[in-house]
Amino acid sequence: VTRRRGGPRSGTSTGDVLSLIRDGRATTRGDLVNLTGLARSTMAQHVDALLAQGFVFEAADQASTGGRPPIRLAFNAGAGVVLAADVGATRTSLAVTDLAGVSLAETSAEVDIADGPETVLDWVMDRFADLLAAAERSDADVRAVGIGLPGPVEFASGRPTSPPIMPGWDDFSVPDHVAARHPVPVLVDNDVNIMAIGEHHRAWRSQADDLLFVKVGTGIGCGIVAAGAIHRGADGAAGDIGHIRVSGAGDAICRCGNTGCLEAVAAAPAIASQLGLKAATSRDIVELVRAGNTAATQAVRQAGREIGTVLAAAVSLLNPSVIVVGGSLSQAGDSLLAGIREAIYARSLPLATTDLRVVTSLAGQDAALRGAATLVLQHQLMAS
Amino acid sequence: VTRRRGGPRSGTSTGDVLSLIRDGRATTRGDLVNLTGLARSTMAQHVDALLAQGFVFEAADQASTGGRPPIRLAFNAGAGVVLAADVGATRTSLAVTDLAGVSLAETSAEVDIADGPETVLDWVMDRFADLLAAAERSDADVRAVGIGLPGPVEFASGRPTSPPIMPGWDDFSVPDHVAARHPVPVLVDNDVNIMAIGEHHRAWRSQADDLLFVKVGTGIGCGIVAAGAIHRGADGAAGDIGHIRVSGAGDAICRCGNTGCLEAVAAAPAIASQLGLKAATSRDIVELVRAGNTAATQAVRQAGREIGTVLAAAVSLLNPSVIVVGGSLSQAGDSLLAGIREAIYARSLPLATTDLRVVTSLAGQDAALRGAATLVLQHQLMAS
Repeated sequence: VTRRRGGPRSGTSTGDVLSLIRDGRATTRGDLVNLTGLARSTMAQHVDALLAQGFVFEAADQASTGGRPPIRLAFNAGAGVVLAADVGATRTSLAVTDLAGVSLAETSAEVDIADGPETVLDWVMDRFADLLAAAERSDADVRAVGIGLPGPVEFASGRPTSPPIMPGWDDFSVPDHVAARHPVPVLVDNDVNIMAIGEHHRAWRSQADDLLFVKVGTGIGCGIVAAGAIHRGADGAAGDIGHIRVSGAGDAICRCGNTGCLEAVAAAPAIASQLGLKAATSRDIVELVRAGNTAATQAVRQAGREIGTVLAAAVSLLNPSVIVVGGSLSQAGDSLLAGIREAIYARSLPLATTDLRVVTSLAGQDAALRGAATLVLQHQLMAS
Repeated sequence: VTRRRGGPRSGTSTGDVLSLIRDGRATTRGDLVNLTGLARSTMAQHVDALLAQGFVFEAADQASTGGRPPIRLAFNAGAGVVLAADVGATRTSLAVTDLAGVSLAETSAEVDIADGPETVLDWVMDRFADLLAAAERSDADVRAVGIGLPGPVEFASGRPTSPPIMPGWDDFSVPDHVAARHPVPVLVDNDVNIMAIGEHHRAWRSQADDLLFVKVGTGIGCGIVAAGAIHRGADGAAGDIGHIRVSGAGDAICRCGNTGCLEAVAAAPAIASQLGLKAATSRDIVELVRAGNTAATQAVRQAGREIGTVLAAAVSLLNPSVIVVGGSLSQAGDSLLAGIREAIYARSLPLATTDLRVVTSLAGQDAALRGAATLVLQHQLMAS
């Protein structure tokens, strides 16, 4: 497991230089030298590398009056594309984006993750090929690949670690398999983490740097943004809140083998069971709630209370400023959110909830794909 | 509230240069230029500033053979001192340390935090004067002050925010009051945070960057080290686990006004009450356990189980690699730790506990003072 170490960085990278240009903080070589203190010769090497890779292009400044106009440097979002995939238990979404994270083409389809990593990833790469063709781009344009998976992932190596619902994937090197077709950096992360990254980037990055993203559907998980960065934990297992004990769960047996887990009372299968529905999905429950079914509405609100009890503990522990509720069951409208809020406000100390917002996902279905693209852009382009 | 923003830094600071010298990564100006890519003229400005402040001194390299020997640069731990204080509810510890965090003189005494900030801080500064005299240093040697307080603190401003056991301290500017006597940077943080920083720095920084420090005494709190940095949360209230609901608490009323809080069953006053002791402190309970009193041993172990239930949720949420148990009740020996471990391992998923260590504090009573000094050294010297 790779860990970030404390202490300051010892220099300015090419990625740092790209970031200054991309964010508009520097538009000339002179700006870059002034901002970084780098020697002109060192800066010239960074800029030449970015020009050669096509990430940056030069343009004469038309607005200049008299004298030799300084050469402006501009970020080239079209210099390449990113491939992003959100691989779920039964459904996978995919996109091709530009280097600013704007989607150029996307699709989604049913695919069973239990078919194993080679089958699923080869299918993913075939869909990427279709999307590249639709976007009129080629394999040579691909600069990086970002993939979300529904289980714990050792982020540094891109290997799932003991994922409960992904037979055959344990310790499989996703980057190695993907890089055989696309020899570019491949980043792999837990799906709820990429949703948290996407939601934070889409809606909150200028307002809140301590955020929890809670996904409620077939399972329950949480992505943690702490001081602007995703918190993955020592084994990549952070945010696994579905198996925290809740007092309302009694002796309900969970798929993990333990009793009293949050998932065993508040995830979609548990709600379906309480309502006497067979083989019902989140979508079926959402439709019942939207149709005004009282039992379904009550069951979803009670599930919200159970989730809120766990989130109240998370609020005491982490003191976030925003909790975002997403996942398929969040589309049931206000019932889930109301239950969550009720339990959080009943159980938290005043200081931690004075400014706390508990809201539904704004990025919605796009959060995961946007997050996968953002993850790749932040880590690979900026750190090169 | 100040928030860290994502994105790369735009340059190398004088503090970064000092850090390279202090850690032994650079011993000459040439090393510094090579490591950072800075222009020689820029680097010369940084080094001149460090020489002028006395943080760095020059020494001719004796080992060089032939030619002009390069001038070595060395960190000067004696260039100044840091004042560190751990202000508790009824007892305060203080130290004067050098710039490497090594204690030069220290003391502790009873002082009631309810006497208010001006009385307490003036008393603290009188003790600092005594310690400076004992260490044969003067006010002019003081480079920074670090103070821990037993309540939530807005770290950026150094103001306590609605601290429950600190009448008169709410929103009081500790740095302004201290700086009137010592016009240097003053950093203020929650006491459990500085203990977590001290413990991490003393015992774990080369091994574990995701650590929880749990303080168990009159109250119960938690310091969170995530990816090597302290996590304070949006309002400085992170780690306030004493008021998380535990099922074993029943309707026990907590000092916070809510029922069912962890503190209401597992902190020292609750244990004393269960044992029928009047006005008993953590120390009294520890002595009973050490003397082999069965009721006290059982009560402490049960308190450990209740704390462990909350920590099991924290393990699922944060996936730390180390949990350190400190505070006055941790001196009761293995009973508390055994109860904590029992509950954590009963309730956590295998992945998050495979490599998890649950241990007693190694830094012990020194953790807080060491943490206050480390906090100041990391933030003020390195960020200048």
